[in-house]
Amino acid sequence: MKLYEQVADAIAARIDQSYYQVGEKLPSIRAISQAHGVSISTAQEAYRLLEEQGRAEVRPKSGFYVLAQSKSPQQLPDLSRPAQRPMEVSQWEDVLELLCANTNREMIQLGRAIPELGAATLKPLSRIMADLNRQDPLATLNYEHLRGSDNLRLQIARLMVDAGCVLHPDDIVTTTGCQEAISTSLRAVTEPGDIVAVDSPSFYGSMQAVKAQGLKALEIPTHPETGISLEALELALEQWPIKAIQITPTCNNPLGYTMPEANKKRLLAMTKRYDLPIIEDDIYGDLAYQAPRPPALKSFDTEGRVLYCSSFSKTLAPGLRVGWCAPGRYLNQVIHMKYVVTASTATLPQMAIAEFIAQGGYERHVRKMRAQYQQSRDVMIGWIEKYFPAGTKISYPHGGFLLWVELPSELDTSELNEYLIPENICIAPGVLFSASGKYQNCMRLNFTDPPNAKNEAAVERVGELAAQLITEQKATLNGTKRV
Amino acid sequence: MKLYEQVADAIAARIDQSYYQVGEKLPSIRAISQAHGVSISTAQEAYRLLEEQGRAEVRPKSGFYVLAQSKSPQQLPDLSRPAQRPMEVSQWEDVLELLCANTNREMIQLGRAIPELGAATLKPLSRIMADLNRQDPLATLNYEHLRGSDNLRLQIARLMVDAGCVLHPDDIVTTTGCQEAISTSLRAVTEPGDIVAVDSPSFYGSMQAVKAQGLKALEIPTHPETGISLEALELALEQWPIKAIQITPTCNNPLGYTMPEANKKRLLAMTKRYDLPIIEDDIYGDLAYQAPRPPALKSFDTEGRVLYCSSFSKTLAPGLRVGWCAPGRYLNQVIHMKYVVTASTATLPQMAIAEFIAQGGYERHVRKMRAQYQQSRDVMIGWIEKYFPAGTKISYPHGGFLLWVELPSELDTSELNEYLIPENICIAPGVLFSASGKYQNCMRLNFTDPPNAKNEAAVERVGELAAQLITEQKATLNGTKRV
Ligand SMILES: Cc1ncc(COP(=O)(O)O)c(C=O)c1O
Ligand SMILES: Cc1ncc(COP(=O)(O)O)c(C=O)c1O
Repeated sequence: MKLYEQVADAIAARIDQSYYQVGEKLPSIRAISQAHGVSISTAQEAYRLLEEQGRAEVRPKSGFYVLAQSKSPQQLPDLSRPAQRPMEVSQWEDVLELLCANTNREMIQLGRAIPELGAATLKPLSRIMADLNRQDPLATLNYEHLRGSDNLRLQIARLMVDAGCVLHPDDIVTTTGCQEAISTSLRAVTEPGDIVAVDSPSFYGSMQAVKAQGLKALEIPTHPETGISLEALELALEQWPIKAIQITPTCNNPLGYTMPEANKKRLLAMTKRYDLPIIEDDIYGDLAYQAPRPPALKSFDTEGRVLYCSSFSKTLAPGLRVGWCAPGRYLNQVIHMKYVVTASTATLPQMAIAEFIAQGGYERHVRKMRAQYQQSRDVMIGWIEKYFPAGTKISYPHGGFLLWVELPSELDTSELNEYLIPENICIAPGVLFSASGKYQNCMRLNFTDPPNAKNEAAVERVGELAAQLITEQKATLNGTKRV
Repeated sequence: MKLYEQVADAIAARIDQSYYQVGEKLPSIRAISQAHGVSISTAQEAYRLLEEQGRAEVRPKSGFYVLAQSKSPQQLPDLSRPAQRPMEVSQWEDVLELLCANTNREMIQLGRAIPELGAATLKPLSRIMADLNRQDPLATLNYEHLRGSDNLRLQIARLMVDAGCVLHPDDIVTTTGCQEAISTSLRAVTEPGDIVAVDSPSFYGSMQAVKAQGLKALEIPTHPETGISLEALELALEQWPIKAIQITPTCNNPLGYTMPEANKKRLLAMTKRYDLPIIEDDIYGDLAYQAPRPPALKSFDTEGRVLYCSSFSKTLAPGLRVGWCAPGRYLNQVIHMKYVVTASTATLPQMAIAEFIAQGGYERHVRKMRAQYQQSRDVMIGWIEKYFPAGTKISYPHGGFLLWVELPSELDTSELNEYLIPENICIAPGVLFSASGKYQNCMRLNFTDPPNAKNEAAVERVGELAAQLITEQKATLNGTKRV
């Protein structure tokens, strides 16, 4: 073993022992050279090797950082290949079915995107709510400003600095969850009949917003590690009169990728050429495992063409229904739509979240959850590799608590769900994430819960049933062929 | 004085002393005859006189009831005469200005429709919220069902029996305030470009929902005591391809009237002939001074064509943002729109309101507020008669806490507001309530607060400034004529 390999191994071991954590800055080359008693060039070689191995990355003018666990042996899903023309979004009945199935309290909800709500770091939020209610009932019971609580907008502006965004509180409108931010943004920048380009697979809630607004979705091929294909998007922009782009570029739902910075910049340059607005859904952005979190698309936007949408539904709790929108140059239209749709956002949760952030509670909670979800991801991937049929491909999330699983093409995951639900297990079938009924053999699973035997058994059961359905389907197909 | 006049006077005196209360059933004719030692026919004559005087009303198969205070000497506004063709709704900038002006805490908000929030009968609601938060954080923090809390929908179905509606909880969807109920209902039954018939003047929030959906509003002449003119509506239905009707038939905002039952029935029959949906906004219905409250339009609907919209924003507190929709045959469309717009309604306030109703808190609070608002109405009307210029006409609300005031045609109430706001007084200018810029000389005032010297002084100041502006305007007009 060469000297630089020994040094690289030593650093890798420390990463494995979590001595250096994901996203953390590694010692400088000079420091490594001193610590290991090797030359500067050997230290440089060691880092080059770690980069090659996907253990570290260099950040210009800054140094080397620990990368999220290098690709595990699992095979990633392929680049998606959705229909190459604008489609009306269907699948509402399927979405409704999923939403209803998941309301059963006994259900093991592998299909929903709900964060962990039992964490001790979340407790102070409820206390703050009770206190505010007692201290100032007149304020908590009254309508909040149309734009949202002043305090909360100030705190949000501060949080968004982490995503590289420098905003004034008046650039921000609070909303009833991210869903309202997305649907009002869509309505602000499109007319019924327009075409919207979307990443694919894509969160079913925003797809349904596209449907409800009478729009057509043009699904753009999307890579499970780098996101929307800019080549495919450029081609689509040349061919179709696209009016807006709607994507989730950071810690994507369902695929889990974060678009590389360079791609984010190229995307913005492209929309500038075509003079298009982008609706950026960043709801999982603060749950990126890497620290500091990756910059939002919005952070590169100097022209106000990004309508940034987010909420506290994944970082804190969805039942609060508090989100926000930073709509850039479309601020006035979004405020109008927001007024028309819900008049104002609930008062007490806004006041409480503002106070929670100010006290440092948000930062503390999110830091804890990020680490927890990252660990759970690895356990969950392990289970799937163990229990799912051969040929299964699994995404490798950079943040959040959602996994995308692609099974052999014989499987229909909607059918699978119908067998699972009576057993009180529920997954999110792939078709929900497409306008055009693609991804029948895919599913989204969450790894919200700290790993436990009940969930492992559920994943095992999903894999078992999937294997069985695939075998049956193959037999039928062979049978048909023989006839 | 005739004998029957004496008896009538005696009963009237007892009404004045609140021995018999508004909405209460009066003694039977037989009982009066016995109590006063007069013949049955004299007792009958006495009631006939009370009816004539507007003190009592007969309800078929039931008996005589105390009517809300007979018309006071004030003159009512005229039947409205809006434009007789479909119009695009404008006025958004004015609405925004009003909403922003009203966020100043020092402002005497005569222009907003906020209920009293300091009442002791409302206190238990905050306590219930704090308790629920502590007892079941996992439930309160999680998404609530798309349709809304089961408990709350059950309680709402029970409440709605008072409005004459027999509904199953599954006929109901909870919403983020009445605004979401209205806007999702509108989207469920119309396409952009359609024409919607509305009462006029009409609440600016629903007018803006019409605007945002790309609809045209056809404003129907409306009577300040009986509501939308059915003759004018019928004419409009013959002339225009109207797709839906949107009205607030009970305790109207801004006029305060309740459509007579007979008119509600005729309206439904008419929409049946034209096969139209009606969006009924009943947000003030439970604040009718008369008990039991008047039946909702929905109560006469056997075909599911009424989309009933309401919320707890006026009866309890608007900051909770909890409302509901009973969309009849349009249930599926409304559920879809609701999902797309906000995904689900905030959890904790739904649970808390359900518990508050179950404990009898709603009934208790609303009963108290009804009586308080009715008293404040009379005081407020007194102030306006005292302080406003000659020729002022005032509505006579049957419920709620809003008054409509029509001033001499020389006055522009938007201009008036510009003078008032720097003095920390704000009214709602009439133009906000019209698609076509009518009602420039009108304003809406609220009488939410228990009468107090500060508010009296504010009303006096509004009257004074109005008189001054009218005089100046007259002088200018005369001047112009002379030139
Ligand atoms: C990508 C994405 N966007 C938006 C939403 C909706 O968020 P909210 O509950 O804040 O409306 C979700 C929730 O699942 C989501 O996953
Ligand atoms: C007639 C009417 N409908 C609807 C609303 C909106 O109610 P909410 O605050 O519950 O959305 C109001 C509020 O002012 C109103 O007066």
